Amino acid sequence: MTNSKKDEPLILITNDDGFEAKGIQILTQIALQFGNVVVVAPDGPRSGQSCAITPRDPLYITEHKTSSDKLRLFSINGTPTDCVKLSIHEILTEKPDLLLSGINHGSNSAISVIYSGTMGAVFEGCVQHIPSIGFSLCSHLPDADFSVSIPVIEKITRLALQKSLPKGVCLNVNIPATEKLNGIRICEQAKGYWTEEFVRKRDESGRTFFQLAGYFENEEPNNTATDEWALANGYASVVPCKIDKTARLLLPQFEQWLGND
Amino acid sequence: MTNSKKDEPLILITNDDGFEAKGIQILTQIALQFGNVVVVAPDGPRSGQSCAITPRDPLYITEHKTSSDKLRLFSINGTPTDCVKLSIHEILTEKPDLLLSGINHGSNSAISVIYSGTMGAVFEGCVQHIPSIGFSLCSHLPDADFSVSIPVIEKITRLALQKSLPKGVCLNVNIPATEKLNGIRICEQAKGYWTEEFVRKRDESGRTFFQLAGYFENEEPNNTATDEWALANGYASVVPCKIDKTARLLLPQFEQWLGND
Repeated sequence: MTNSKKDEPLILITNDDGFEAKGIQILTQIALQFGNVVVVAPDGPRSGQSCAITPRDPLYITEHKTSSDKLRLFSINGTPTDCVKLSIHEILTEKPDLLLSGINHGSNSAISVIYSGTMGAVFEGCVQHIPSIGFSLCSHLPDADFSVSIPVIEKITRLALQKSLPKGVCLNVNIPATEKLNGIRICEQAKGYWTEEFVRKRDESGRTFFQLAGYFENEEPNNTATDEWALANGYASVVPCKIDKTARLLLPQFEQWLGND
Repeated sequence: MTNSKKDEPLILITNDDGFEAKGIQILTQIALQFGNVVVVAPDGPRSGQSCAITPRDPLYITEHKTSSDKLRLFSINGTPTDCVKLSIHEILTEKPDLLLSGINHGSNSAISVIYSGTMGAVFEGCVQHIPSIGFSLCSHLPDADFSVSIPVIEKITRLALQKSLPKGVCLNVNIPATEKLNGIRICEQAKGYWTEEFVRKRDESGRTFFQLAGYFENEEPNNTATDEWALANGYASVVPCKIDKTARLLLPQFEQWLGND
């Protein structure tokens, strides 16, 4: 369905805030400096969708007009992962050189990486052997000021096109909502969990229901190698993430655990 | 909300096929041999929900009658991950000794681990420092014969209660739908991806839509260390999975990649 100039990179863009969000529009403008861009994003907010797929319901692809012949824009009534799968199998005629997801309105650092729809799309790109990067700004505001993120995204996009990424590894990039950045750091995913997670309310009939809320409990606040530390200290964090979940170093220990030794 | 006898383990059970599925009923019967059981599961099918959470919509908890004073049963209108979060924060008054998810109707081996709602619940338990295990039978039939899985689940549940699991590591257990099992193997997650994923159809108005389908492409069919090999050769597979996604061994390489060296 798409026709790109072969001499320019093809960049696939998606997100989890929906195709009309400010973050994806800024990411699209950045990407257009580097090549031809195809945006395939959910038709509305899909935050917290992780790597969810739509196993049964019908998925529709809607194309929208754009103002550039280097840009095509599609929305889909599915998850971010659905968007990547449909892009590869039904929309694009060639494999993209790069997948960018975001710019997310809100942090996806630490354990949030497993819930994030932004990163769900990135993992799907990685599974499909596309160099894939998620960008998130640590502000949930719909009209957040993304200025500080632009040079970070430009630098990392340029490097990814020049040097690619190792097979099976993608990047989770978070940028603090600060005026002045202290730099970009390669980080570990901070250990921690969300706690006190629900607000208890009553509906019109008097029945109790629960809404997700809570805060992140950092289990290693003094570990300067983590993404949480970097973000709290004015750095953008880059966590290289594996799609292989195997705890490889523990395999011999588990042979003993099972009694197979 | 729950009162358990302190001398017996407390086992939390969930799944992604819904609280009425055959698989979760069998898992519940197995778990009742080991302690008090609280089932908190989705009110209907939530396959492919990964670690998805419900960020905005109201979540309702419904308690159902059971025939045993060692068993309580709740359903929730959310994802498997929502079920675990609500269990810990709103239903249970003590941390469970073990979280079991399944028995899933269908394999969650190889890359399916990242899409699986069964495993989404397991990862959430692991984040919350609960020893957590997902069980899946390689048959999608609603009335599948789970007989072969029962001794495997009994053995692994007994070991998990006796020896616990390392922090940050959970288990993805898959069982082939065979009559006779050759044994249980500790495995790696096989490398691969789903391909030819969509069936193209037309709705009543003539508009084209897409439904997820496709098949798994194993990129290392001859690697005897993988879960796919084990399952194809009549073994149950146990993959120890990390919730930390950091590609730790590559961090120095990424310092160079970024130009921070």
